[in-house]
Amino acid sequence: MYAAIDIGGTKIAAGLVDADGLLLTRHERPTPAVEPMSAVEDLLARLAADPGWEQARAVGIGSAGPIDAAKGTISPLNIPAWRDFPLAARVADTTGRPVTLAGDGVAMAAGEHWRGAAKGRENVLCMVVSTGVGGGLILGGKLRPGPSGNAGHVGHMCVELDGPPCPCGARGCVEVIASGTAIAARAVREGWQRPGGGPASEATAAEVAESARAGDPIALASYDRSAKAIAAAIAGTAALVDMEAAVIGGGVAKSGEVLFGPLREHLKEYARLSFTRDVTVHPAALGGDAGLIGAAALVRHAEI
Amino acid sequence: MYAAIDIGGTKIAAGLVDADGLLLTRHERPTPAVEPMSAVEDLLARLAADPGWEQARAVGIGSAGPIDAAKGTISPLNIPAWRDFPLAARVADTTGRPVTLAGDGVAMAAGEHWRGAAKGRENVLCMVVSTGVGGGLILGGKLRPGPSGNAGHVGHMCVELDGPPCPCGARGCVEVIASGTAIAARAVREGWQRPGGGPASEATAAEVAESARAGDPIALASYDRSAKAIAAAIAGTAALVDMEAAVIGGGVAKSGEVLFGPLREHLKEYARLSFTRDVTVHPAALGGDAGLIGAAALVRHAEI
Repeated sequence: MYAAIDIGGTKIAAGLVDADGLLLTRHERPTPAVEPMSAVEDLLARLAADPGWEQARAVGIGSAGPIDAAKGTISPLNIPAWRDFPLAARVADTTGRPVTLAGDGVAMAAGEHWRGAAKGRENVLCMVVSTGVGGGLILGGKLRPGPSGNAGHVGHMCVELDGPPCPCGARGCVEVIASGTAIAARAVREGWQRPGGGPASEATAAEVAESARAGDPIALASYDRSAKAIAAAIAGTAALVDMEAAVIGGGVAKSGEVLFGPLREHLKEYARLSFTRDVTVHPAALGGDAGLIGAAALVRHAEI
Repeated sequence: MYAAIDIGGTKIAAGLVDADGLLLTRHERPTPAVEPMSAVEDLLARLAADPGWEQARAVGIGSAGPIDAAKGTISPLNIPAWRDFPLAARVADTTGRPVTLAGDGVAMAAGEHWRGAAKGRENVLCMVVSTGVGGGLILGGKLRPGPSGNAGHVGHMCVELDGPPCPCGARGCVEVIASGTAIAARAVREGWQRPGGGPASEATAAEVAESARAGDPIALASYDRSAKAIAAAIAGTAALVDMEAAVIGGGVAKSGEVLFGPLREHLKEYARLSFTRDVTVHPAALGGDAGLIGAAALVRHAEI
């Protein structure tokens, strides 16, 4: 049995996951703006009251980044109250159990490799395409968190040297072209109208997908651009690490063929080397529980 | 003692390398257009006549790519006589020794990690910037050849989604922007004149570097564009694999500060994440013998 914590900008979840990767217990709290540790302590108290708790040998934490796995600290962009916050030590103190910490993209990769779309594969990039773009890597059949616990952060590969500025400070990053935020903003900029009306500033990638399915050319073009950036990132990653597949999860992946159709086409254009052209793409298999199962998988991977 | 073979489009070299990474014997032949295996056989006969041969337990081969390490075959773009050529088996037959085969960029990384600029480092991208752009990866203190033996092929990461077409069939690859070929072609296209005169089609990156050192703005701009693509590739690789340094060799790296000056500046622009912004760049330390020392290092790495 593994204890698992999933730290996000809007919610914090905790659960117990058994040795087969089944999520047996799940508790969730909104992320407090002030003293977010109070929510973690509350969730841990809930877990400790569970009959399964005694069997939980260790705690896995997947956190919004950036994090520093070597120091055990987190500094999530979307949780300003935490900067270099020693979460791993705090959770170890509270629980009396060893803690494994990594970025949420790394946790997602661990989870998909354990019992999702990356299962049985040796070399895979797992991507989360959502408000931002993150990811994690499986290399040689094993998770690669990297020394900092952030490896696989494909959202900040540059695919457009002179491209739009990215919140990270660079320009032309995959995230600033391919994320749900970028899909919606680009469509609005090009004159697309929200199908249900309402302020353009609140447009979502899901609405753009709805229009794209109805044949709206601006909506289709915005998804096409996102798919192109993702394809270039996958092709580049394949050239760099030599891998067989990419798994894509997150809200934008839920748009299905609106994203995956053009993505497969663009991948043929960008992945042209003998050892990259057969790389395949797959939707992530773990749904809303991916964060907790991934956090548990971090512990499992650390044990392997 | 290791036997080493370095397969290139213009020359094939073979040598004996001792356990400390010293190249004790070196033989070289131009790459024959017809039956290139004859040159390999000739070189192996030379090695077999060497008193050190009996101590050579295994043969390492670094070859121009693409190669297929799993099948033991090579198909170097610049050696049309060889397509899916079973070089590993042929060399094993001739020598009676086990053979380790990888791409030349992977071999260079192995060599630089053994006794060059990547020595003592855990996570490093080694790049060769020359006529083309190749590379290899050290991850977790070990060589990552990948299943195909081509991992680290950073030259075919896309850094310009709508960029110039690349000979590989994709567009905007690092190679088509950053290689010596690209540096010279771009300078010519922008109106730069060769310092010694002569046909523009024979212009070299070394000549552009000479003009850049003299302050020629077109020459400086062409190196700057190359440096920008290399910086974006290093930053993207750091985000993806989580690494501490990049080592750069090949003819273009010999231009020194003309390349490394703007490269360090652009790296500050593109590497902005907490775990990427401290990545450092270093010139490769092994000179003309890098290919053979790297090929020997492949065997050493396979043994570790």
